[in-house]
Amino acid sequence: MHALTAHEITVVLLSLGVMLALARILGEVFRKFNQPAVIGELLAGIILGPTVLRPVWPELEHWLFPKGGGPEVVLQGITTVAVVLFLLVAGMEVDLSRIFRQGRAAVAVSLSGILVPFGIGLTAAWVTPDFLGRSPEVQPYIFALFFATAMSISALPVIAKTLMDLNLYRSDLGMIVIAAAIFDDLTGWFIFAIVLGLMQHDTGGMLITSTIGLTIFFVAFMLTIGRWLVHWILPWIQAKTSWPGGVLAFALALALFGAAFTESIGIHAVFGSFMVGVALGDSPHLRDRTRATIEQFVSFIFAPLFFASIGLRLNFLAFFDWDITLVVLFIAMVSKVLGCGLGARHAGMGWRESWAIGFGMNSRGAMEIILGTLALEFRVITERLFVALVIMAIATSMISGTAMQWVLQRRAPRRFLDYLHPKGFINPLQAIEREEAIRELARAASGISGLNAEAIEGAVLKRERMMPTGLGLCVAVPHARLHGMNKPLVCLGISRQGIEFAAPDGEPSQMIFLILTPADDNGAQLEILADISRTFLDAHVRQGVMQVNGFTEFIALLRTRQAGTLGGPR
Amino acid sequence: MHALTAHEITVVLLSLGVMLALARILGEVFRKFNQPAVIGELLAGIILGPTVLRPVWPELEHWLFPKGGGPEVVLQGITTVAVVLFLLVAGMEVDLSRIFRQGRAAVAVSLSGILVPFGIGLTAAWVTPDFLGRSPEVQPYIFALFFATAMSISALPVIAKTLMDLNLYRSDLGMIVIAAAIFDDLTGWFIFAIVLGLMQHDTGGMLITSTIGLTIFFVAFMLTIGRWLVHWILPWIQAKTSWPGGVLAFALALALFGAAFTESIGIHAVFGSFMVGVALGDSPHLRDRTRATIEQFVSFIFAPLFFASIGLRLNFLAFFDWDITLVVLFIAMVSKVLGCGLGARHAGMGWRESWAIGFGMNSRGAMEIILGTLALEFRVITERLFVALVIMAIATSMISGTAMQWVLQRRAPRRFLDYLHPKGFINPLQAIEREEAIRELARAASGISGLNAEAIEGAVLKRERMMPTGLGLCVAVPHARLHGMNKPLVCLGISRQGIEFAAPDGEPSQMIFLILTPADDNGAQLEILADISRTFLDAHVRQGVMQVNGFTEFIALLRTRQAGTLGGPR
Repeated sequence: MHALTAHEITVVLLSLGVMLALARILGEVFRKFNQPAVIGELLAGIILGPTVLRPVWPELEHWLFPKGGGPEVVLQGITTVAVVLFLLVAGMEVDLSRIFRQGRAAVAVSLSGILVPFGIGLTAAWVTPDFLGRSPEVQPYIFALFFATAMSISALPVIAKTLMDLNLYRSDLGMIVIAAAIFDDLTGWFIFAIVLGLMQHDTGGMLITSTIGLTIFFVAFMLTIGRWLVHWILPWIQAKTSWPGGVLAFALALALFGAAFTESIGIHAVFGSFMVGVALGDSPHLRDRTRATIEQFVSFIFAPLFFASIGLRLNFLAFFDWDITLVVLFIAMVSKVLGCGLGARHAGMGWRESWAIGFGMNSRGAMEIILGTLALEFRVITERLFVALVIMAIATSMISGTAMQWVLQRRAPRRFLDYLHPKGFINPLQAIEREEAIRELARAASGISGLNAEAIEGAVLKRERMMPTGLGLCVAVPHARLHGMNKPLVCLGISRQGIEFAAPDGEPSQMIFLILTPADDNGAQLEILADISRTFLDAHVRQGVMQVNGFTEFIALLRTRQAGTLGGPR
Repeated sequence: MHALTAHEITVVLLSLGVMLALARILGEVFRKFNQPAVIGELLAGIILGPTVLRPVWPELEHWLFPKGGGPEVVLQGITTVAVVLFLLVAGMEVDLSRIFRQGRAAVAVSLSGILVPFGIGLTAAWVTPDFLGRSPEVQPYIFALFFATAMSISALPVIAKTLMDLNLYRSDLGMIVIAAAIFDDLTGWFIFAIVLGLMQHDTGGMLITSTIGLTIFFVAFMLTIGRWLVHWILPWIQAKTSWPGGVLAFALALALFGAAFTESIGIHAVFGSFMVGVALGDSPHLRDRTRATIEQFVSFIFAPLFFASIGLRLNFLAFFDWDITLVVLFIAMVSKVLGCGLGARHAGMGWRESWAIGFGMNSRGAMEIILGTLALEFRVITERLFVALVIMAIATSMISGTAMQWVLQRRAPRRFLDYLHPKGFINPLQAIEREEAIRELARAASGISGLNAEAIEGAVLKRERMMPTGLGLCVAVPHARLHGMNKPLVCLGISRQGIEFAAPDGEPSQMIFLILTPADDNGAQLEILADISRTFLDAHVRQGVMQVNGFTEFIALLRTRQAGTLGGPR
């Protein structure tokens, strides 16, 4: 094989750039609607690949993703490394001790949440393998085992994000769900590795007993001695090498070695890096900063590239099949919700919580998609089942949050940013005293909502006279509940010299929030007030606000305030 | 071309893991001796490639880096992306406004520091092109232009690190050197791009005028409209997308597009990402956190892979030639030191400072190595000149710091960690009051240094009685200057309940440093004291110290304290 030509290098760089840009843009669009970014990333590949771009503009598709040359091999190499690193991060999120800390309920949910879908999946695949999409090249029992595993797996990151959105992450219910999801992930991947090991027998690879023996040995080693070695060597690396470069390279090199090992014994490379991640992520010596650097780079660069590359593999429309898709979706949802729900109920939780746990665990997300991709590569399943699994993964992830809200009758608490209109951001305020400031903000609110400005002003002033609304730390929150509104409205005026709002700390207020909420909405005012005080407790934010020019910079300041460590749910 | 087989994927993962691990380990070894990490990374490739591993164990070399198959192409693709990202980071460090802020002196040093080496290099290469290693395939004027450029370039990151080590980074002299190095880097790369453009004429690529016209257009665009667009769009991305993922992907996708563009017009991909870096790095809207994430991942993962891959290309021993190496080294050093030194002197600086600037600017580092690699790829130079350039780059980088110290008669200030022995770390102290604590620490110091314990104790107590050494913030620093020592010694005792050292804030001291310095060393005591108080001003460190178990964890705590943004000098 020749070295890459200048033209091929141009093609590689351009195709990577296009994949990354489109995947991230569509990922962001889905996040805006509170959906997993992975859906957008997958869609980017579907648009760039055989499904959309090839029929629409075949020359461009052929130029950007040529078949059978250097660029295709490079792309395959890079996306393989990408998924290996993605599973490293997924493994780092697995915290084994959690399962035991959560006790009986977590164990019941985990076991029942695996066994029920596994049993139902196994039966269904055994009864109608060909309808469900068995590849003619594999034996029925291998296909049945794979299908059962695919039904049992769950998507830890999506579940964690859903719980955080609903403010349930630190609750008892949240802890149980997370612990059970960790256990399901770990078990699911282990069973799948064994399934791939069994396949080696078929294709005449390594001896089946060696593959399975080595897989079990590797998992056992990484969970015991491997974990202990990492735990022991990490402080040494942090002490002796440049930081964070030493740890970063150590983690990545270890993941590559683990991946090479599992690939060489006949199961896929991703298992190796996943187990390395489990061993690494458990160690309290791994600093949050290092963890965040790895997670950010992988979640925002490598993962989008990998998921976009899935869309490039086949024509999703051509292989879409209503019958399989609906059956797979039905089996997956019913078995998982029932399994987890009954497990929780059995452990003594109320019906309402039990169903909430069932729906929470139902997300399949990125994990199912990766599982399906590997099964397709190893020719366990047909393209039609692959497409059905991808759709099932997306659908279960999208339903999860809404279903939990509905069962628990619980909403995500409201944030003030969602109700702040660009026209309601007044910087600087002309007013120099309280009533004037309220009038100025009321006029802006009237322009946005269409309510009468005097009515707003009157209601706010009435409330203000009962008790002044200076919170301290330069923040004031004049507010009122009004009839005729159907959603809250927040306006923010910034005053450089400060305006007296009789705050308990005696300081004049520089950030004045006007909060208007519907008269019949009991929670809104309190939730928005709590969100504002939480946000502006941070001195860094308060200083930053006084320096922003315009609304966009203000939003940028608030969004970049927290170092988000999770790249978003997948 | 076929897709990668499982065996080929194993080989790719394993070779990447081995390259990364060995490059980082050797990189760390060179950093320990205060030398650029790039030397170790290069050495890793030399060990794994045709120079060492092939003659020693040809089967292993062939297995790990097979020629002419998928793994080789994947490795080439990945290292190309790696060097593209490395130049993105190098570009991000270029801060154009600095040159103008530094005024006349910086301009004089920059210009003279480019023109003199360029003129001397051009003349030498014109007079004896074949001795210096012109590739028979290029015309003499192109070779001469390249050689002149290779003499003029400098290595911003190495220079910055040298100045930081000598505490000169924020001084006037440091600012001038950095500004001049930025200008030299930018100009050098621009000239080199033009040289490659000229070559396209030779090889019958795009029209020479198109290539050069497009290059000039691209540079002008990125320095003006491109910069402005980035500046304008960054706050929007930070406001609208998830953070830091949006910005991260934006920067990388932009770098890939820029790289694809310059590759397609016939100059190398690295120019594109370098100019994208220049446009990005200038923007104050790029948050430090995002910058650090990109820099860390690139410096510690991609850069080691790229530099190790250079060593895999050829047999460095076989192509080593004393004559060329010495001549190249001589021309490079004399022309750069003279050019920059005379420029500085002309701008009105003293002789001593002028020579210091000359030696400071003399480092060639990673930039020269990349330049040489490209010239070799484009067949401008022979392998012998390539090896000579690599050695020159390493030698000038290694000399720089020492030469500046010697000319300025200035040392790097001492840090207490360098004099803290594991046996001098006592946690917890048995003592509960001051004199007892000093006795306990003096005994440890005696065990390490061989000095008499009572003599130490007496000298320290005498000093302590003149004025107690509690600094406040729970730190105390009993100290003495002693005869018979040849270097300082620091011991640290940790007391959970705290010991009264009459600190100005009235708090008992929990971290008690015993500082012993040689009687004839005037600076040591003050430098170490200053270093200790600077370190423990950080509340996070003080809290951390009270929780460490053992010496290694203590060192790890201090090293991981700062988020090092530079991946180390190259």
